[in-house]
Amino acid sequence: MNIKAIGFYIGHILRIEGILLVPALLIAMYRQEIAAFQGFGITILAVLAAGMLLLLVCSRKEGKESGKWSAHFGGDIHAKEGFVITALGWIVLSLFGALPFYVSGSIPKFIDCWFETVSGFTTTGATILGEIESLPMSILYWRSFTHWIGGMGVLVFLLAIIPMSKGTGETFHILRAESPGPSVGKLTPRLRHTARILYLIYIVLTVVMVVLLLLGGMPLFDAVTTAFGTAGTGGFSIKNASIAAYDSLYLQIVIGVFMLIFGINFNVFYLVLCGRMAQAFKNEELRIYLGIILGSTLAIAINTMPQFSGFGEALHHSFFQVSSIMTTTGFATVDFNLWPQLSRMILVFLTIIGACAGSTGGGIKVARLVILGKSLKGAMQRMLRPRTVKAVCMDGKLLDDHVVHGVFAYMTAFVFICIVSILTVALENYDMESTVTAVFACIGNVGPGLSMVGPMGNFADFSVMSKLVLTADMLIGRLEIFPFLLLFSPTTWKSRT
Amino acid sequence: MNIKAIGFYIGHILRIEGILLVPALLIAMYRQEIAAFQGFGITILAVLAAGMLLLLVCSRKEGKESGKWSAHFGGDIHAKEGFVITALGWIVLSLFGALPFYVSGSIPKFIDCWFETVSGFTTTGATILGEIESLPMSILYWRSFTHWIGGMGVLVFLLAIIPMSKGTGETFHILRAESPGPSVGKLTPRLRHTARILYLIYIVLTVVMVVLLLLGGMPLFDAVTTAFGTAGTGGFSIKNASIAAYDSLYLQIVIGVFMLIFGINFNVFYLVLCGRMAQAFKNEELRIYLGIILGSTLAIAINTMPQFSGFGEALHHSFFQVSSIMTTTGFATVDFNLWPQLSRMILVFLTIIGACAGSTGGGIKVARLVILGKSLKGAMQRMLRPRTVKAVCMDGKLLDDHVVHGVFAYMTAFVFICIVSILTVALENYDMESTVTAVFACIGNVGPGLSMVGPMGNFADFSVMSKLVLTADMLIGRLEIFPFLLLFSPTTWKSRT
Repeated sequence: MNIKAIGFYIGHILRIEGILLVPALLIAMYRQEIAAFQGFGITILAVLAAGMLLLLVCSRKEGKESGKWSAHFGGDIHAKEGFVITALGWIVLSLFGALPFYVSGSIPKFIDCWFETVSGFTTTGATILGEIESLPMSILYWRSFTHWIGGMGVLVFLLAIIPMSKGTGETFHILRAESPGPSVGKLTPRLRHTARILYLIYIVLTVVMVVLLLLGGMPLFDAVTTAFGTAGTGGFSIKNASIAAYDSLYLQIVIGVFMLIFGINFNVFYLVLCGRMAQAFKNEELRIYLGIILGSTLAIAINTMPQFSGFGEALHHSFFQVSSIMTTTGFATVDFNLWPQLSRMILVFLTIIGACAGSTGGGIKVARLVILGKSLKGAMQRMLRPRTVKAVCMDGKLLDDHVVHGVFAYMTAFVFICIVSILTVALENYDMESTVTAVFACIGNVGPGLSMVGPMGNFADFSVMSKLVLTADMLIGRLEIFPFLLLFSPTTWKSRT
Repeated sequence: MNIKAIGFYIGHILRIEGILLVPALLIAMYRQEIAAFQGFGITILAVLAAGMLLLLVCSRKEGKESGKWSAHFGGDIHAKEGFVITALGWIVLSLFGALPFYVSGSIPKFIDCWFETVSGFTTTGATILGEIESLPMSILYWRSFTHWIGGMGVLVFLLAIIPMSKGTGETFHILRAESPGPSVGKLTPRLRHTARILYLIYIVLTVVMVVLLLLGGMPLFDAVTTAFGTAGTGGFSIKNASIAAYDSLYLQIVIGVFMLIFGINFNVFYLVLCGRMAQAFKNEELRIYLGIILGSTLAIAINTMPQFSGFGEALHHSFFQVSSIMTTTGFATVDFNLWPQLSRMILVFLTIIGACAGSTGGGIKVARLVILGKSLKGAMQRMLRPRTVKAVCMDGKLLDDHVVHGVFAYMTAFVFICIVSILTVALENYDMESTVTAVFACIGNVGPGLSMVGPMGNFADFSVMSKLVLTADMLIGRLEIFPFLLLFSPTTWKSRT
């Protein structure tokens, strides 16, 4: 294990976090929120100090003459370092990110600060807060901003800005560990370019959304924080009533459509940018994704119609909720916990399915669903004609056996972790709906579940033990399980192969 | 598709069913249960007539000179015929098996008769009856006897008694389609011998159990029907209160232990019979199976202790319930629906896991769990060291890639069918617990679920639509999904390859 390399990257992550905290500090200063100002100030000092210390220690051996950070650590990064850097990086990021809530006194218990911050960075949007609107603006800003940071991933950002001296092979391991989906597409041969293009698309889409929200009459602060929550498919709102607080058809539709957009694989946007429209819309995952949204929206609209004034209103809320849950955002315009059982169960399944690979959304991803479906079809054909061999294809290309096996391993681990989590949370003796959907909502990075943790409820009443399990689930869900499983696997820490 | 061969086998199945109905007819005669006697009489005539007609039609071409049924149909049986024979065979078996309930008037609606019979043959044990004890004895006998028939499988029985003239290759397809578990072990080179050995073990174990129950003071009729329900891991009891009606520690322990025994792979018993004890106990599935039972029993005993007079009593009921649910039997000594959430959730997960492959139990089988776990471990090792290839082994033998892929396909199909079933049943707008556990209890062939379908509840209130879906789930669960999926797949019915 290359400890120095790990320290080096985590040091970098902390430096970046320090910089990302500055806007919140400025808001606190401008709004004269003294407690929050102290919170952000102390956190920035702590995070920068820790980051610089790590960088110093982990680059001591090679000296500083090269002037580039990337040249400072000795040895290479292999797959296992990639996983460890990602997993540890996100834990450290969240630990420091929780400090402003704690130091400012906005959230009294540290476990709750940790829960809220992990929920933010992992773009889950599950909250322990019942009363949100009374928090200082700078704290609300940071809370929403964590969604935006976590959506695209902080390590992708790192790759986008640090000049790498040792080629792309090693950093690819990190990108792979942090990226959502069964396989990583390299848009361009150079990884740094890929990372930059992804962030550029992300920023442009966010800005467009803010503008559209402003045009609908939403105040600037609301527009920016809502856009953060949407872009990261997070779901923290600055209102107690979530998006129901904005009683405007236009605003709710803009948010609904943008959630859907941020749930699409960013590679599709890249293809559109390059003018390869046909190729973009041939994407099988995209078509299944849109198909599921369309089907679920219609089914729920019909099922919930008696609760609304007509099919139009039912369709409006149904679309918003389906888009919100499928993309794992978690915003709400109505209390869907009160919907009929069929609609609630559809939402539970959408929670698990999640958005497209390579988007900012969570869940098991539509791409994995497509691969599972294709494998099943292939297996059934083999059963009928055992001697014919039919390969599994996706988007016209042959699906690598490694990718298919990876999907199965992922699914197995996913189910295993869900079972362990549900049994642990069940110790609290809440009803089955609350217990199961709390775990699904956290591991799927959705946020709200049903019953006690429904859109109008929150996670405050869970015990420390459950909160630890649920935060672990959020991190596991965001990083697609394996960085965490491997972090705690003894094999990873055995001396190098 | 070789239609004649399918007709031939189904004709045989019907003939056998006619014979299997005779004991019930005799009981009805002896007990002078006139309505039941009519029911069984008419059914036997109908089933024998239909069977003989099918055999006649499907053997016309080749003539009857050979004198052996097996020589009568033209052409071979391939994998697809094996699946179709199994799926159709079970449907036809259940349709005729439901007639006694209907004709005798014991169960007024035919959909309920169908539900009860499918539940019997598939060894599920889910019932639509609230009041059981007032039924005629012959009807109760038939109800329990369907468990015993379904436990080992009627096609295995067919293979055991019909002399096959065309080698074992073709009939192997049928055995494979009906046998539970990821792979079929041939105990002996000749399939007919294997089938006979399996049935012999089954009969001997059942008789031993009846004797032990009689020694505990249980009446003969109760002992026989309870043994049928236990041996088939079914769960129909002739008492409204299930096994709680026998308030004897000895009886409950005998039943608990025998449920556990019938959940073990019958290959293990064969090895024991052959004196290969060491090999029998090296079986990885068996060890994991016993481990899960031990772990779950202890966890539930500790969790439910406050509800009992002490740890001893908690352990007693916990063991019985765990053994009952894990083996997918479904007997109950207490209303576990009232247990704390952790215990209930453990039982839900045991419902899905089920018993060992090659036993009479249902669920996804412990063997598949073991294979999934090993694949996951292998995948994680490959992630750390992408260049090393490590094969997955089980019981010291290399696991065939085909078996592993088959398990993945099975799991995918299982989840897919669960989702579709849950959404359909959710249309009734019952609570999530009832909806989800009803589906799990049926597809896992367990019987009772939680809440409305808990051990003290029943399935009577579901709509015809839900009952059809749940009976389909039972059949799908018992035949391990693919015979049914393939029966309804257009590819199966395309002209021969």
